[in-house]
Amino acid sequence: MYLKSSQVYFPNQIRKSGYLRIEGSQIAGFSTEVPANAEVVDYGDHLIIPGFIDQHIHGWATGSFNHDKSVHSLKEMKRTLPLEGVTSFLATSGAEPIEDLLEGIHNASQVVDTQKDDGATLLGVHLEGPFINREYKGMQREECCIDPSLDIMRQFLDAQAHPGIIRLMTIAPELPGARELIELCHQQGIQLNIGHSAATFDCIRDLKEYGLGGVTHMFSGMRGFHHREPGVVGAALFFDDLNCEFAKQTGMTVRPEAVAMAWKMKSKDKIIMTTDCGGIALTRKPKYHYIRKQTFIPDGDGIILKGDDGSVQRIALNDVAGVRKLEMGYIESIRNLIANVHPSVHEIIKVTAENPARYIGVSDRKGSLETGKDADILVVNHNFELQAVYCMGKKVVMEA
Amino acid sequence: MYLKSSQVYFPNQIRKSGYLRIEGSQIAGFSTEVPANAEVVDYGDHLIIPGFIDQHIHGWATGSFNHDKSVHSLKEMKRTLPLEGVTSFLATSGAEPIEDLLEGIHNASQVVDTQKDDGATLLGVHLEGPFINREYKGMQREECCIDPSLDIMRQFLDAQAHPGIIRLMTIAPELPGARELIELCHQQGIQLNIGHSAATFDCIRDLKEYGLGGVTHMFSGMRGFHHREPGVVGAALFFDDLNCEFAKQTGMTVRPEAVAMAWKMKSKDKIIMTTDCGGIALTRKPKYHYIRKQTFIPDGDGIILKGDDGSVQRIALNDVAGVRKLEMGYIESIRNLIANVHPSVHEIIKVTAENPARYIGVSDRKGSLETGKDADILVVNHNFELQAVYCMGKKVVMEA
Repeated sequence: MYLKSSQVYFPNQIRKSGYLRIEGSQIAGFSTEVPANAEVVDYGDHLIIPGFIDQHIHGWATGSFNHDKSVHSLKEMKRTLPLEGVTSFLATSGAEPIEDLLEGIHNASQVVDTQKDDGATLLGVHLEGPFINREYKGMQREECCIDPSLDIMRQFLDAQAHPGIIRLMTIAPELPGARELIELCHQQGIQLNIGHSAATFDCIRDLKEYGLGGVTHMFSGMRGFHHREPGVVGAALFFDDLNCEFAKQTGMTVRPEAVAMAWKMKSKDKIIMTTDCGGIALTRKPKYHYIRKQTFIPDGDGIILKGDDGSVQRIALNDVAGVRKLEMGYIESIRNLIANVHPSVHEIIKVTAENPARYIGVSDRKGSLETGKDADILVVNHNFELQAVYCMGKKVVMEA
Repeated sequence: MYLKSSQVYFPNQIRKSGYLRIEGSQIAGFSTEVPANAEVVDYGDHLIIPGFIDQHIHGWATGSFNHDKSVHSLKEMKRTLPLEGVTSFLATSGAEPIEDLLEGIHNASQVVDTQKDDGATLLGVHLEGPFINREYKGMQREECCIDPSLDIMRQFLDAQAHPGIIRLMTIAPELPGARELIELCHQQGIQLNIGHSAATFDCIRDLKEYGLGGVTHMFSGMRGFHHREPGVVGAALFFDDLNCEFAKQTGMTVRPEAVAMAWKMKSKDKIIMTTDCGGIALTRKPKYHYIRKQTFIPDGDGIILKGDDGSVQRIALNDVAGVRKLEMGYIESIRNLIANVHPSVHEIIKVTAENPARYIGVSDRKGSLETGKDADILVVNHNFELQAVYCMGKKVVMEA
């Protein structure tokens, strides 16, 4: 099969006009001509770009690794994420009881190893905690924020079916024992993000060389910038080699101007967009959302939303179209990024695909449209609205 | 007279090898040859650059516009500032009683209008306050921080011998009546810096168009950066057209990494180096310096320094070599800037001469070595140590 467009995007700022060939689940090449009778889908002047990789997503629509660690829940994320352009992701946990995390790693292993070419690829797990600082817990569970423990970390590692399931971990490097944990994770090929952290600038400077690669949800849940103590924010902006991961661009948790400042300071090779969505519809306990000013109350096969303004609404949990509206999805966040910082298409591709693929170690198969890589492909119009999504070469049905 | 060097620096990144001609107080041209028997001073491969312009200096060595508004005090600043490479400056006041400020403006007018080619040029006055915010008073006198008043501002304007003496004013734009004051000053050709200010990002965004041109001592005395309220710091970094003025680079009030971050974000055309020195030896009342951890006690024709560590020292007020050591001077601050941010020579010239000259409206005669401008010239070696200083064409005797 061939996808035709006047704007097919490849790394190193190359835009080509022609035919992208898909063979099974792989990208098989690019050409300016096709054989007679070839199967061609003509996308005109729509943009053909790599699928988005979300390295920080707890849940979305009808699945949530946060609230329901079952195989079913992970499969729901795989099924519904492509609706927002996400073609691969790390299931992300939070500060939770150890046994829940072990169960999650176990189930994620199972899905990773048995998944067929069905929906978004589960690339592994991002452990956001539990070794994070209570002082900057944000919406994490305080009682589950604990000091780094090599014993617990080894349990996490052992819960994997094989190395490579846990690909990213968010830690607070100022906590006692962090250095040893960083070293252990780094030996295992796990990237380490600083997050939910009160670390000083000097702490990060001193520990960086042991394997700190970036920060989680830049600006939020970290010691802010001060001109005598630049903190985590200052370190993330100052050190060229630290990646800045951004959560979804709602404009509520971080002002667009702050994002624009980081955009200006950092190399575009060191910015990674994520959503940090939670799959909030699947919460098991009533949960107050301080930004939405709503309480989410589980109600059997539905969720009730009670607003501070007195409003009440119920949504069925299997109503994908309904529950997905509860959180801003990946491509809508990217449209906001476009409005705020005016990136080039190539910059968008870097921060949504190339950079996370490289950072979490999957650039051999994800993150670009080069020959031999997985056929995870988005077709978008000039307003960055999705026209088509391919996951592992299969076209996604966009009505879930 | 001709100054010869292999490195004479002109604007637009031009470095020439040859002869800079001085006629009286003016730069008369540049050439690669000179007439036979011409008077030539050969500086080899030393750098020949424009003199530093300090738009924010309260006092220095044996003179202080802060502590002694007399003509004598201003003349002492003129005499001693060239020892640190400063060839022109704005005498800078603080939050002080109105009558003191009026006296200062009056005396500065007199010196501006009668100065011969003697030492550094007094370019006029920088009023740092009194319309500043007590909440961010820093080392300013709280009881003298007042809300903007058009009546008082008109008194300041009237105290000038003619328009153009007051060239810069630092205000807190969030104070009531600030907008009207900004408009009045702008009509009078006075630049307005934001400083000692709790202004929000939106306040600055809304008032900027009325005539806010920059910020005073970046990072200090202003609302800091937060990702939901970027404050004065965020506005200064975000808005390309705001100038960032930096105080002397001691590394104590602002961490070098914070300076480096601003250096990275801002255009080099929008950074202005100053010292913000006080002439602390001339304090009239005992004064505790919280950074030096010393109390300065006036003692007749001397000053006694009592350290928190029990140390006691007395320095005679006419001992220029002694009192100048009490504060870091301009060129030493620039050497620290070089160590921290590794600027090019052209960038140094921008932030020390070209930019302040343009900002305070004296670029017709100061800020570069172009023909027709005042012969305010520095000769420095490759370590940025002063080898010679010319003020208005006259070579300065470097032993004061």
